[in-house]
Amino acid sequence: MAVRLPPRAIIREVGLRDGLQSITTVLPTERKKQWLRDAVAAGQTEIEVGSFVPPKLMPQLADTAELLAYAKTLPGLSASVLVPNLKGAERALEGDADLMLLPLSASHAHSLANLRKTPDEVVAELGRIRAARDASGRKTLIEGGVGTAFGCTIQGEVKTSEVLRLMQALLDAGADRVSLADTVGYADPYAVSTLFEQALKLAGDRFCCGHFHDTRGLALANSFAALQLGVTRFDASLAGIGGCPHAPGASGNTSTEDLAFMLSSMKVDSGIHLPKLLALRAQVAGWLEGEQTHGALWRAGLPKTFAASAAQ
Amino acid sequence: MAVRLPPRAIIREVGLRDGLQSITTVLPTERKKQWLRDAVAAGQTEIEVGSFVPPKLMPQLADTAELLAYAKTLPGLSASVLVPNLKGAERALEGDADLMLLPLSASHAHSLANLRKTPDEVVAELGRIRAARDASGRKTLIEGGVGTAFGCTIQGEVKTSEVLRLMQALLDAGADRVSLADTVGYADPYAVSTLFEQALKLAGDRFCCGHFHDTRGLALANSFAALQLGVTRFDASLAGIGGCPHAPGASGNTSTEDLAFMLSSMKVDSGIHLPKLLALRAQVAGWLEGEQTHGALWRAGLPKTFAASAAQ
Repeated sequence: MAVRLPPRAIIREVGLRDGLQSITTVLPTERKKQWLRDAVAAGQTEIEVGSFVPPKLMPQLADTAELLAYAKTLPGLSASVLVPNLKGAERALEGDADLMLLPLSASHAHSLANLRKTPDEVVAELGRIRAARDASGRKTLIEGGVGTAFGCTIQGEVKTSEVLRLMQALLDAGADRVSLADTVGYADPYAVSTLFEQALKLAGDRFCCGHFHDTRGLALANSFAALQLGVTRFDASLAGIGGCPHAPGASGNTSTEDLAFMLSSMKVDSGIHLPKLLALRAQVAGWLEGEQTHGALWRAGLPKTFAASAAQ
Repeated sequence: MAVRLPPRAIIREVGLRDGLQSITTVLPTERKKQWLRDAVAAGQTEIEVGSFVPPKLMPQLADTAELLAYAKTLPGLSASVLVPNLKGAERALEGDADLMLLPLSASHAHSLANLRKTPDEVVAELGRIRAARDASGRKTLIEGGVGTAFGCTIQGEVKTSEVLRLMQALLDAGADRVSLADTVGYADPYAVSTLFEQALKLAGDRFCCGHFHDTRGLALANSFAALQLGVTRFDASLAGIGGCPHAPGASGNTSTEDLAFMLSSMKVDSGIHLPKLLALRAQVAGWLEGEQTHGALWRAGLPKTFAASAAQ
C-alpha cells in the first residue's frame, strides 16, 4: 500500500541556534535579524532564535535576548529559545518567548558530559521551570526535548524504555510538549518509525517534533518515516549547518531547504516559498564563507516539473 | 503504525557503468577488475560491469567484454550489462551475461535526444532482443528499464499512465523483468510509493528494481519508500558517482555504501560487509582523484552502536 501523508507540516528553523552554535563564525546581530526577517518573508513560522546559555560558553549566541525581542515584532512568527536550566528559562519568560525548549539527554553519559546533570535532575529542573512559568503569568510553552534518543557517541546504546520513561517524566513534571532528537545522527528510518510510534502512543498530540541530523545521509528518510506516522513538526537548519562535534566533516542538521523541497514535492504544505528560501540560503552561506554548508537542492535547483504554483 | 520491511534486499552495483560513464577519468581495466574482485569480497552479488555501446561514444566502457568475461570467473557474482540495442544484446549474449538491461525513456523527448528512438521503437527492439536470446540458447535475463519515470529535464512532466503502458509493453514484448529509474533525480518518496505500488500491481514479481539518483538528496528516502512496498533490489553506485550531466555539481546515483548502511542499520540483510565496502570506497575514490564523489557514511564512519556482528 502506498503511504498516506498529512496535508501540512511545519519546519522549525534551528539554524540560528543549533546551526550557529556549532561553527566558529560569529554572525553579527544585524545579519541574524535579516535572516529572521527573510525567513518569515519566505513563509517560515517557527524559529528557534537562540539559547540562553552563559555568553562566555557560547559567544555566538550572546545576543539571544535582543533577537528574541526582535522576533516578537515579526508578524506571524513563533519565536522559541533553548534554555539549559531555570536561569535560562527566567530569561525566556522575561523576553516572553513563545516557547522554550529544555534539552535532556537520554544517554546518562552524554547528559553528564554536556549538561553536568543526570537526566532525572533535568526532569526536576523542568518542574521548577513549570512553576516559574505558571507564576510568571506568561503563556510561554515548555517543550522537553529528549536527545540522544537513538544512541550516543559516548555511551553507545540508549534503551528505548529509558527514552520513553524520561519522556513520560517530562510530561509528568509539567512539560506542555515533548520531542525526540537524534542528537548524534544514529537514527535510521525504521528506528524512527518504531520509536516515534511508541512516543505518539505515550504522548499523543503532546508529542510535537522530530529533530534529525544528517550525519549519515538519513535525515530526509528519517523525516519521511516520522511524517508517515503523522508527525508534523521537524527541526531543520538552513544550509544544513549544525553540530556534530564528534564527527568532523559530517553533515549537521536536516537541511531546511531540502526538507522543504521534499515536503513541497509530496504536496505536504509547509507554507514555505522555495525560491525565496533558496535566496536566503545563498545569502546565509555567503555570510558563513569558509564554514561547511550542506544540502543538495541548492546545487541542483528546482526540477522543471516543479509547478510555478507550488513555488508561489 | 510502524513500517514493515523485507528481511533481505540486494544492492546492484552500477558504479562501473552508470558511475564511470559520467566522469572523464578512464579507469584502467586492471583497476576495474580489482574493483569487481573487492566488491565480491565485500559481499556484493550483482554488478553491472559495463555497457555495450560503441567505444567511440563511451571510451570509458570500451573494455566491457573483457570485464564481463572476468566477472564470470568470480564465484557467486551475477554480472549484468547495459545494452542500447540488438547489436549490444548480441555482444551480451556472446559474453554470456547473466542479465542485460535495455533502457527505455518514458519521456519521448528524452528518448529521442538520448537514444534517437521513440519509446515504442525501443519496445520493438526488446522484442528482437528476446528473439535473439531465445535463439541463442543463453540464459541471459532481459530487463526492460523504464527511465525518466518521475519526470524529465527536457520534457518536464512524464505521465504515470505512459510509464505503466511502456512497462506493460516491455513485458508483452518479452522482457523477463522490468524496473523503474528516476534518471534525472525528480522523484520524492511519496511519488515512489504511489508509482511503485502501481508497478507492482502490474508486473508482480517481474518488477525487480528501483534506480534512484541523489540529485536533490532524496535517494535514500526514495529507497526506503520502495522498500516498504516490498521492493528488494536497488541500483546504487559506490561513492555515489554517476550521471546527472544536466545538473552540474549535483550528486549522482544512490551511494552504495550509504544505502548498505541504511539497510544494515534497519536489519535488512544485504549481505554486504560494511568495513570492507568502505575500504573499497576509499580505494576507488583515490583512483578517481579530482572527480566529485558523494555520500555521507565515509566521512562520519560507522556508529558506535553498530554491532560488530552486523559488520562481519
